[in-house]
Amino acid sequence: MFLTLTPHSLIIIPPKPKTIINWSFSIHDCLWDIAVRNWLPRSPTNIQSIHFTVCSVKRFGTSSRREKLILCHSRVLGADVAFGIHNGVFIPTIKELGIEAQIAKWVPLAQDLQIIGTYAQTELGHGTYLRGLETTVTFDPSNQEFVINMPRLSSIKWWPGDLGRSATHALVLAQLYTQGKCQGMHAFIVQIRSLVDHSSLPGVTVGDIGPKMNFDQVDNGFLILQNVHIPRENMLCRYSEVSPDGTYVKRGSDRINYFSMVLTRTRLLSAEIIPALAKACVIAIRYSVVRRQSKLKPGEMETKILDYQMQQQKLFPQLATVFAFHFMASSFEAFCNQVKVQIKSKGDFSSLPELHALSAGLKALLSDVCSAGVETCRRACGGHGYSLLSGLPSLYTRVAGSCTYEGENTVMQLQTARFLMNCLSKVYSGQPLPQSVSYLSDLFSTRCCGTEKTDFIKPPVYTKAYKHRAQRSGHLMFSLCFFCCQAHCQYTIVNNFVETMSRLQHEPEIQQVLQVLCDLYALSGILANAEEFLHDGYMTGHQLDLVTASQRDLLTCVRKDAVSLVDAFDYSDQQLHSAIGSYDGHAYQRLFEWAQKAPMNAKVPFALFLALSSCC
Amino acid sequence: MFLTLTPHSLIIIPPKPKTIINWSFSIHDCLWDIAVRNWLPRSPTNIQSIHFTVCSVKRFGTSSRREKLILCHSRVLGADVAFGIHNGVFIPTIKELGIEAQIAKWVPLAQDLQIIGTYAQTELGHGTYLRGLETTVTFDPSNQEFVINMPRLSSIKWWPGDLGRSATHALVLAQLYTQGKCQGMHAFIVQIRSLVDHSSLPGVTVGDIGPKMNFDQVDNGFLILQNVHIPRENMLCRYSEVSPDGTYVKRGSDRINYFSMVLTRTRLLSAEIIPALAKACVIAIRYSVVRRQSKLKPGEMETKILDYQMQQQKLFPQLATVFAFHFMASSFEAFCNQVKVQIKSKGDFSSLPELHALSAGLKALLSDVCSAGVETCRRACGGHGYSLLSGLPSLYTRVAGSCTYEGENTVMQLQTARFLMNCLSKVYSGQPLPQSVSYLSDLFSTRCCGTEKTDFIKPPVYTKAYKHRAQRSGHLMFSLCFFCCQAHCQYTIVNNFVETMSRLQHEPEIQQVLQVLCDLYALSGILANAEEFLHDGYMTGHQLDLVTASQRDLLTCVRKDAVSLVDAFDYSDQQLHSAIGSYDGHAYQRLFEWAQKAPMNAKVPFALFLALSSCC
Repeated sequence: MFLTLTPHSLIIIPPKPKTIINWSFSIHDCLWDIAVRNWLPRSPTNIQSIHFTVCSVKRFGTSSRREKLILCHSRVLGADVAFGIHNGVFIPTIKELGIEAQIAKWVPLAQDLQIIGTYAQTELGHGTYLRGLETTVTFDPSNQEFVINMPRLSSIKWWPGDLGRSATHALVLAQLYTQGKCQGMHAFIVQIRSLVDHSSLPGVTVGDIGPKMNFDQVDNGFLILQNVHIPRENMLCRYSEVSPDGTYVKRGSDRINYFSMVLTRTRLLSAEIIPALAKACVIAIRYSVVRRQSKLKPGEMETKILDYQMQQQKLFPQLATVFAFHFMASSFEAFCNQVKVQIKSKGDFSSLPELHALSAGLKALLSDVCSAGVETCRRACGGHGYSLLSGLPSLYTRVAGSCTYEGENTVMQLQTARFLMNCLSKVYSGQPLPQSVSYLSDLFSTRCCGTEKTDFIKPPVYTKAYKHRAQRSGHLMFSLCFFCCQAHCQYTIVNNFVETMSRLQHEPEIQQVLQVLCDLYALSGILANAEEFLHDGYMTGHQLDLVTASQRDLLTCVRKDAVSLVDAFDYSDQQLHSAIGSYDGHAYQRLFEWAQKAPMNAKVPFALFLALSSCC
Repeated sequence: MFLTLTPHSLIIIPPKPKTIINWSFSIHDCLWDIAVRNWLPRSPTNIQSIHFTVCSVKRFGTSSRREKLILCHSRVLGADVAFGIHNGVFIPTIKELGIEAQIAKWVPLAQDLQIIGTYAQTELGHGTYLRGLETTVTFDPSNQEFVINMPRLSSIKWWPGDLGRSATHALVLAQLYTQGKCQGMHAFIVQIRSLVDHSSLPGVTVGDIGPKMNFDQVDNGFLILQNVHIPRENMLCRYSEVSPDGTYVKRGSDRINYFSMVLTRTRLLSAEIIPALAKACVIAIRYSVVRRQSKLKPGEMETKILDYQMQQQKLFPQLATVFAFHFMASSFEAFCNQVKVQIKSKGDFSSLPELHALSAGLKALLSDVCSAGVETCRRACGGHGYSLLSGLPSLYTRVAGSCTYEGENTVMQLQTARFLMNCLSKVYSGQPLPQSVSYLSDLFSTRCCGTEKTDFIKPPVYTKAYKHRAQRSGHLMFSLCFFCCQAHCQYTIVNNFVETMSRLQHEPEIQQVLQVLCDLYALSGILANAEEFLHDGYMTGHQLDLVTASQRDLLTCVRKDAVSLVDAFDYSDQQLHSAIGSYDGHAYQRLFEWAQKAPMNAKVPFALFLALSSCC
């Protein structure tokens, strides 16, 4: 159970980021201190040296202490995604698309970091539209080899992580040509750098794509392959193969690929997207009880900014969102596991479309909302929120990337909408629907029944409102697919939050606190999308005013638990890396201390500027 | 006239950023190339060396060519705000708050860069709430000096631009104490660094506040003053003075200060905020005709992404917004000039509250909308929009700052709301209203009269809708001041756009193109705030559907002129500094060329990683 109640506060233990290695805390602290002291150790060159060293350490052997130190350092620098593609995509894809012999050959090498792999799919000219990828792999039966080429500038592989400086091998996704015919996209293992001196192999041009909005520590790279030959065995061939004479053989279904994509997106929700908003809430809420502004009465102390309704209105809906999304991600993970069992034990793929659609919609909604939420938290911290020392700008620039990677959000929404459209045509033809969309065939309620403001914190009232909106958006979908995806996902999330609360009956203290957040999430969402509830007269303007009044009452309720709630996320000061959001509340001291460590504050000798003055 | 029609396209010349110096284009090009080639010359240390050199060059004399080169370099690096505080705040404030003798003493020194000034107001613990500032200046009649102190950590001056490395003098805003009594905040000139070796003077601790989300080239700093003595003449004393015996004398009104603040905010709109969105539109729209995705028909080329309605829906309302805001800023500037004449010639301050309120509301609305708009443009460019080479991330991280500086947006909105509240009480008591809010006393129309989708592109129809919403929000304001500020400003902007169009009757080609943008701005705004038009039944759901349909028709109209419209902003490739948004459309070539120049791609010698491997 992830909820426990301690004498001090409600402790909610979030899924911790996976610990790469178990180092002692003193080492961690020491290196973190180095990171702060040296300011810009995250420069690409430094980070890549570290990557490269980890790689060499593994390849040439080393003491475990040194290895720990290096990994620890890279982790401290935010490099918890170091080799993320190698570990999270390269190895799993070989396991998924390779046959036993391929897995036996490559996976141990990769796991031992004897080789470092990347996943080279996206090209300069194509991302989401996979059929448009231009890299070609042509089978030559005369010497049993594939020949890889990139016909145009736009075919250059662009963006793969771990590629710029680290990777020795690439899983290249390319159009397969054999016997003069294109067979579509397949995956090939291509060695790109020497295992002896790390130089790029003949025909290979590889490098870094330059600076990004964040992810300095990931060496996203480019890759040009010109007339590169690889043996026939390097095509991952669980689902299709080219036989020695060049005959293309398809075997089985590759639908399981979709399931891998779903799993990757699910991990993204709880490993990247939700924690970003959670951390931003911790920082902004803690800072808002340290920061004071304006005296309400002369002689009194100035008021903590968290006591202003405007500030609560900015922050508390974000806090409620963290919980709503956390519960949703947990339920979704359970659904994934259930489908996994269906697939593995019975070869039953029937739930895959539903799972895929929900994963796409949730990824799009959660990344959009969490990005906007992090930025709201950042701005709520005023000027200090603009300082990198607050930790907030980098939370934003990082989570903002998740709106684009692992499926661009607009495309994701269209995919979910397409699934919903399919479901609706089933409704019209009287076929049964998957569970998560079964509400589409339920009867429409045409009017919201709330008449007093307390009616609107009744879960059945607001759940029904969300259901009505999702039904209505679904039926309008042919013109408004964006809205229908969002309405469907938000209904699912509210419904899931309400159900989660009902399972907490045996823990009334926790239930009471979380129920307020559940109500706040639901009502804030109604207000943020009010036009969709008003549009067909389901709610009246007067009812919306009642929702507004109720939502304000909830803000007051959250105020007293707000700090305990964010403390309970249990992020260490090291994980937050924020001068204004640490547990002890010493925001100003820490800003001042950290600022003094800026390299700008090292004394510039007078000689330097004389030198500069005389240099031209 | 800022609109001219050429045979090739509509040329709209925006206000150009002020050119510091008139250097030849060849030098500019050459240095810009250096900037690209060297990647990170914007590191704080480099930039500060440049600042410092400019300062020393001025102080010790130099050839004009070297000076040009240095200034040019700093400009190329985005440092068009170098010495922004010195030039834009320090000098003007002395002129505004100083008496003739003070102006004669300090301004020539400052203009000649013999001294470099900063404006030290904000403290670690206080920004917007000026009465809370803690720095004290106590007059000591025994030696005719002021003694400056900062009693607490939270009193440290924090954020002033040009302070970290450059400033030799600070205008310190502090609580004045004389004869045992606090007289409130006043401005004092304090020398903080030696003019000989730039070292900090006794009692002065000064440094940089560390990295920020952007503005690397501005050395925002901190300043601690401990028992620092300055002569009595260093208090700027046009409006109040401390006489030799310590008597505090107030003379005249300092209301003119408000006018300075208004002017600063006005400059911000056209120098920083609107250009950010304009540039983002140029980059995103140009890239969207280069980027292709998905074949609509087999055998055809893939479709330009700008031909998708979803992409148009993201970008074209932003383009319309640039025009709406540009016209608004122009009108507002004219209003400022008119008030300036009233004040200077007749001492008539009666329009100042209206001007101040409108400037606050416009600053808040425009910075919010332009920040969100830049980010929308960035995300509309998919993965490449996440690369710093696109130019888009830094446009966002920079304009996002404007939501906080020169008046935090929430506080700005509250100020405008307070003014509107005042006006309303005048309505209730039958007093006349200032021109820009006179609509508040007009009759309410209760129903929107549009019945067909073409009705909604009639300016009187949508202007009336905005007016109704602003009136209604005004009357609800006691509970909803945020909404009333936004409703008031948006009505003003739509009204102003419509009026500007009516003045273009003699230029029908231009009028025709811009009218579409005017309609698009108005309808997109109705859709984005639909609940406020639906809430009291002013519009029905059906009417809103007509607005939706009309808005989509407009997108199609804008499509054919979109590229010409952004070309007509006439930003040079150098000003955009974007690999994907240049005039020639060679997005992929430039991404590839620029990426190759990344320092990461310099060969890391094998020796380095051996050295790293053996270092612990």
